[in-house]
Amino acid sequence: MEIQEVKTTDLQQFQAIMLKAVNAGNEYKKVSKEAKANFLEEIVRQIELLGFELIETAMTETNLPEARLIGERGRTCNQLKMFADLIREGSWVEASIDTALPQRLPIPKSDIRKMLVPLGPVVVFGASNFPLAFSTAGGDTASALAAGCPVVLKAHSAHRKTSVLVAGAIEKAIQLAQMPKNVFQHVIGRYEIGQALVKHPATQAVAFTGSYTGGKALFDLANHRHRPIPVFAEMGSVNPVCLLSEKLATQPESLAKEMAASITQGVGQFCTNPGVMIAVEDKALDEFLSHLKIAIQQVSPAKMLHSGIAQSYHEGIASVINDEDLSIEAAVQKTENDAGNALIASVSAAVFMERPTLHQEIFGPYSLLVKCKDKAEMLAVVNVLEGQLTGTIMGTDSDLQQNIDLLESLTTIAGRVMINNVPTGVEVCPSMVHGGPFPATTDARFTSVGTSAIKRFVRPVCLQNFSQSLLPAELQDGNPMQIWRLIDGEFSKA
Amino acid sequence: MEIQEVKTTDLQQFQAIMLKAVNAGNEYKKVSKEAKANFLEEIVRQIELLGFELIETAMTETNLPEARLIGERGRTCNQLKMFADLIREGSWVEASIDTALPQRLPIPKSDIRKMLVPLGPVVVFGASNFPLAFSTAGGDTASALAAGCPVVLKAHSAHRKTSVLVAGAIEKAIQLAQMPKNVFQHVIGRYEIGQALVKHPATQAVAFTGSYTGGKALFDLANHRHRPIPVFAEMGSVNPVCLLSEKLATQPESLAKEMAASITQGVGQFCTNPGVMIAVEDKALDEFLSHLKIAIQQVSPAKMLHSGIAQSYHEGIASVINDEDLSIEAAVQKTENDAGNALIASVSAAVFMERPTLHQEIFGPYSLLVKCKDKAEMLAVVNVLEGQLTGTIMGTDSDLQQNIDLLESLTTIAGRVMINNVPTGVEVCPSMVHGGPFPATTDARFTSVGTSAIKRFVRPVCLQNFSQSLLPAELQDGNPMQIWRLIDGEFSKA
Repeated sequence: MEIQEVKTTDLQQFQAIMLKAVNAGNEYKKVSKEAKANFLEEIVRQIELLGFELIETAMTETNLPEARLIGERGRTCNQLKMFADLIREGSWVEASIDTALPQRLPIPKSDIRKMLVPLGPVVVFGASNFPLAFSTAGGDTASALAAGCPVVLKAHSAHRKTSVLVAGAIEKAIQLAQMPKNVFQHVIGRYEIGQALVKHPATQAVAFTGSYTGGKALFDLANHRHRPIPVFAEMGSVNPVCLLSEKLATQPESLAKEMAASITQGVGQFCTNPGVMIAVEDKALDEFLSHLKIAIQQVSPAKMLHSGIAQSYHEGIASVINDEDLSIEAAVQKTENDAGNALIASVSAAVFMERPTLHQEIFGPYSLLVKCKDKAEMLAVVNVLEGQLTGTIMGTDSDLQQNIDLLESLTTIAGRVMINNVPTGVEVCPSMVHGGPFPATTDARFTSVGTSAIKRFVRPVCLQNFSQSLLPAELQDGNPMQIWRLIDGEFSKA
Repeated sequence: MEIQEVKTTDLQQFQAIMLKAVNAGNEYKKVSKEAKANFLEEIVRQIELLGFELIETAMTETNLPEARLIGERGRTCNQLKMFADLIREGSWVEASIDTALPQRLPIPKSDIRKMLVPLGPVVVFGASNFPLAFSTAGGDTASALAAGCPVVLKAHSAHRKTSVLVAGAIEKAIQLAQMPKNVFQHVIGRYEIGQALVKHPATQAVAFTGSYTGGKALFDLANHRHRPIPVFAEMGSVNPVCLLSEKLATQPESLAKEMAASITQGVGQFCTNPGVMIAVEDKALDEFLSHLKIAIQQVSPAKMLHSGIAQSYHEGIASVINDEDLSIEAAVQKTENDAGNALIASVSAAVFMERPTLHQEIFGPYSLLVKCKDKAEMLAVVNVLEGQLTGTIMGTDSDLQQNIDLLESLTTIAGRVMINNVPTGVEVCPSMVHGGPFPATTDARFTSVGTSAIKRFVRPVCLQNFSQSLLPAELQDGNPMQIWRLIDGEFSKA
């Protein structure tokens, strides 16, 4: 693997990169599932062998603290291992067999089988807020490689050195695991490079985590191609949290501490940061707010990921501070350049519902409290929101019983709905949905976190009237892969 | 249900239709799976009660013969029953449960569960070539209703009376099964009405079977909405059939009869009609062609679905006849107005590969034989084709062993690959894929035939830290639905 630095105008270079990806993909899809799993595990070993150099480089490039990056490296490795386990087990291919009925009248039924097959070259964009877990060897790369697709990674410009280090680890793993040479390629270049990769005819799918502007632009580009391709863009969200009355009245302090921690976690730079809180205005809410103010002010502002993000955040909160419709409930002073100082504002539900710009994310440790007159207005506020990654209710059992409609509305707009959990902290597991209706993502039917993320990079193919020797092992009669399959509509490992 | 005849400009009427669909959908998603299954089965009973009137009406409107329409009615009813069985069994919701680990360090793991939930109102377009099985109560409507989505059906203008009859049967079933009044609505109007329905903000997904022009226009419209929505457009295909040498040499006559029957079946008006045959030029091919000519000429031309389709077909074959690059191998004389007279032409592989317009479908009983110099050229021809619904190899065991690369290439471009089966005749079963890479469809990840068609109208939702009483039955601990679920990553009915 070369660390390819690409100039915008160099069409031949794109051609060469994508041709290598296609050829590597044709070889790679024939690699056994065991060998693919070993490859993913070898990437883990090679990342671990980078040792503290990786953490140090990422600390310098992203301002993220050591503990967070060590944690993120752990998550990155665990994701790779999770996909290794998933493909080694093998049932994820959704094998299905309908046996022949040669005597059926009026016409015989042929033997029909299907399974998921890889799409081909996937272009992955590194994410600024996860230099490891959603970048070079992150969840998108891991799930695409697990699916059997070659990956062309466009490094995020904010952490190129980190990306080059990880790409080097993948390169070593390719050699040691004897994988096709270009099954992973690493591209460095300007924004236009990413666009050119998405437009290239050989590209089959795109994975992106970032801003609405960036993700929507790639989605449009992909749909305007001669042959449109799927784009999985995770574009953020305000992740509404509904604070219900009895909960506020009975646990104002612990709830305030929990919300303050979630709002400021990672300097508010998580896709699932709670950017909007919704509550009925009453004394309990005032008490919650007084505790929230104290809790927020106890968090020292840390540097944001890079100057661009810090600048956007400060422009965002400046507009909040200057907005006559909004009141400031808690503010922390800026301590150093590029620091993200937390801010909590509030607004009446009536104004919030009239001004869609207030529903938009300000990326950083900011949250807007929407004050409602009553339960009905709270529901109305949720119903004007667009698609979200998450929706949360903080409530006692009695609160919940009285707000089933609110729970239903949150389930309609969000990919993940929580009760008495903060939205930050996305568990990597089979039941996770890190996704949600547009504009949270460009495709609510898929998740970018958890084992199901592999489903983004495959399609079903049906094989009719194939002899046993021509069938892939997953579909052969004897079930040599020992996987779960649907046989004439019944799940079975037989 | 009213039979709504909509004028293009009447915005209020759209608003009313979609509002009714949203409200019906909110009720319908709470209906038990048993009640939904009974509803689908009641539609079957009501369609059967229409008796011969339905067949007669469809015969008059579509020129299709009685036997075909009786068969298609049977398929329509079987599809509805298949989805009734699927939702009654219930495992299709892909329930997944990850149990909590409250003691986990450094942070506890919450209880996380997920399942598929309905998207909301689906707009279905009736298909001209399947007035029953892909129209009013056809596969799209059946799978959307099974998924829990309300349906707004845009009737195909070529068989309005048939559509009104079937809509009446659904209306009776709604009443008898006590379903929400507007869970199905029937709309009659011009082409622009369909566009307006796709653009309406409340519409969540679109299903269409028809031309590339029609399907791609809806796809573009849906992606230019403020909130893009999925469009499942099945837009046809030339369904390449590779005729291998030993097969041609040993079974020229039976193969010719089989191909002639497939090319002329239903006057060639099937999406999976074999519009392109690919073979190496040799004596065996000449003999096959002489048999094909006889077999084709034995099929009397029948009337096509409507004048518009017949006119397009005759324009298409006129251009073939006047094309100096093409040779006519077999032709049948036109017997009456609107009849589809079969035509077989041939072209050299070199010319075929240079002229992409020759790769396009001519809807009707036409097939183009691509004559190749050798095996390598045959592979090259397959590799220049765009996405296809199907790809077929006719070959002996020895042929197949020598053409594994051809089989791989077909698997790359098609949704369904067959060996020694003709592509017409799409089995309705769990392993079917009636879909394929663009431009065969707008979304190769889904099928419009078979049980998996239900997956087009749902998305996963994740419920985190819910108490048992707030969880849907599919996700409750005791598995009251008795469905297959993924529990901590393991399939189980426990």
